[in-house]
Amino acid sequence: MTIDSIYEPIQPEMALVEERLIQVAEAAPAGLVEQLSYVLKNGGKRLRPALTLLAGTFYNYNVDLLLPTAAGTELLHTATLVHDDTVDASDLRRGKLSVNQLWGNANAVLLGDYLFAASARMTAETGNIRVIKLFAQTLMNICTGEILESLNPFNRSRERYFQAIGNKTASLLSAATESGAVLSNAPEWAVQSLKEYGYGLGIAFQIVDDILDFTGKRETLGKPVASDLARGVFTLPVILILERGDSDAVKDVLKEDPERGSQLLTEMVRNSSAIEESYRIAQDFCSRACSALEQLPRNSAHDCLTALADYVAQRQS
Amino acid sequence: MTIDSIYEPIQPEMALVEERLIQVAEAAPAGLVEQLSYVLKNGGKRLRPALTLLAGTFYNYNVDLLLPTAAGTELLHTATLVHDDTVDASDLRRGKLSVNQLWGNANAVLLGDYLFAASARMTAETGNIRVIKLFAQTLMNICTGEILESLNPFNRSRERYFQAIGNKTASLLSAATESGAVLSNAPEWAVQSLKEYGYGLGIAFQIVDDILDFTGKRETLGKPVASDLARGVFTLPVILILERGDSDAVKDVLKEDPERGSQLLTEMVRNSSAIEESYRIAQDFCSRACSALEQLPRNSAHDCLTALADYVAQRQS
Repeated sequence: MTIDSIYEPIQPEMALVEERLIQVAEAAPAGLVEQLSYVLKNGGKRLRPALTLLAGTFYNYNVDLLLPTAAGTELLHTATLVHDDTVDASDLRRGKLSVNQLWGNANAVLLGDYLFAASARMTAETGNIRVIKLFAQTLMNICTGEILESLNPFNRSRERYFQAIGNKTASLLSAATESGAVLSNAPEWAVQSLKEYGYGLGIAFQIVDDILDFTGKRETLGKPVASDLARGVFTLPVILILERGDSDAVKDVLKEDPERGSQLLTEMVRNSSAIEESYRIAQDFCSRACSALEQLPRNSAHDCLTALADYVAQRQS
Repeated sequence: MTIDSIYEPIQPEMALVEERLIQVAEAAPAGLVEQLSYVLKNGGKRLRPALTLLAGTFYNYNVDLLLPTAAGTELLHTATLVHDDTVDASDLRRGKLSVNQLWGNANAVLLGDYLFAASARMTAETGNIRVIKLFAQTLMNICTGEILESLNPFNRSRERYFQAIGNKTASLLSAATESGAVLSNAPEWAVQSLKEYGYGLGIAFQIVDDILDFTGKRETLGKPVASDLARGVFTLPVILILERGDSDAVKDVLKEDPERGSQLLTEMVRNSSAIEESYRIAQDFCSRACSALEQLPRNSAHDCLTALADYVAQRQS
């Protein structure tokens, strides 16, 4: 299934989210409109707003509260992407030049800050303190994940990997579903179920992202291949290789010549079952994410969330 | 008067703000504690928390609401300083090495983001949506000010200067007083008066900051002298020189050789009445700030705010 066919039932609301994002760009002071329009119209899957909208359908559906939250998650996500690209000195994002590449690092830092603030401003429209706190805490988690990743290059433990992607990716996907549930006055057990779904989906989403970093083509990824390894970040496929008993040789090379070691590792990942095994682990997280939904009312959103989990576990781009 | 003697009546509350800031550092994940402690214990005048506390004394004083807001303004301010130093590649802040200098640009960007989030999280403790929105909008204004400054180097208009410092400095000082007033249930006219005071004080504070960039010593400033001009930012003393009929020669030099032109301008600023005139303009803003307080109840905070205005208009460091 394509992502567009999964979004079919919420297509009108997704269009309204898009409108809100464009409004943020157009309401900005003259000097910022061009840059904001560039990043906010730059597509992407809009997964986070979709999750908020879908999670908000099971109890008292209130589109006036869900829309600013959905747009708020996307603004927060966009802000982190702008800063990530700046921090990693990435030239490309979704196949287009990154903000740092186009307007320089200084402007990219400030534009990201503006987007964080716009996200907070948008979320405050809900008037819901729990959701506002959740967004702030999520940004703290994302930063923590990123800082720990940069402070601990060449991490080889599966545990640290899951903690890192939990912070940097799953926390925002779970905030997206949790806030949708909270704003529809879902009972607490249902809020927790939807939060759990979002978290599991987020872990799976990031694992597949990390797989695609090895298997994807530059044109499809919209960024260079094996870029994580190049900056010293060991993702799941690499960790699986290093866990094997026969990886002592490559560990030695890594110590003596990190660049050569990284090349070797990339080849080993591609010529092993590590990719397959990583997909299996991602699928496992998606299955558990769907299990968390079992007690929720059945509606079309329920089917969408299940289809999304299938999509995330199998996506090739 | 020293700043400490002005803070005397709110000394216990200021100590509690300090505790809150330390708690933010100590509650952070292990990898971030050192960096957060470094920036949050790095002194400064704590002007913004003092303003929130003082502005909150005129009606229903509620320290439980004022404390998180006071700490929140300082967190927001600190975040902007960390990002400013990164964007400007400054090596020093308050006489100590900057975060970007100590831990690199990437970590500085992420640490600033964490502080923004911590500020939003802290402010949400008030449960007051107006204050939460105000903080988000203020960050948007600050970023706008910074981006417009960097997009328009060598700006020579007084109007743009006041707009820029209004955004980048006065907006947060006025948010500090406005939020204190809102949280004490001040009537709307009193909220507006305290907001106006904060804004005027903020303009004056930044003018004096810009003066000190020329007249201060590196040791007192804790940063290099004439650093604004070096990065193409024309502040009030420079604009006053360029407004004079006899500045055509230096304008020509600026066009042909910006570095030589900047040196010439620095000498002209120091050997002219531009510094004196700038101080006079700052004092004027402080006087008007104090006028805004006239209808407010008389209490010890009223005296503190007046003393603060005198301090800001005359400070030498």
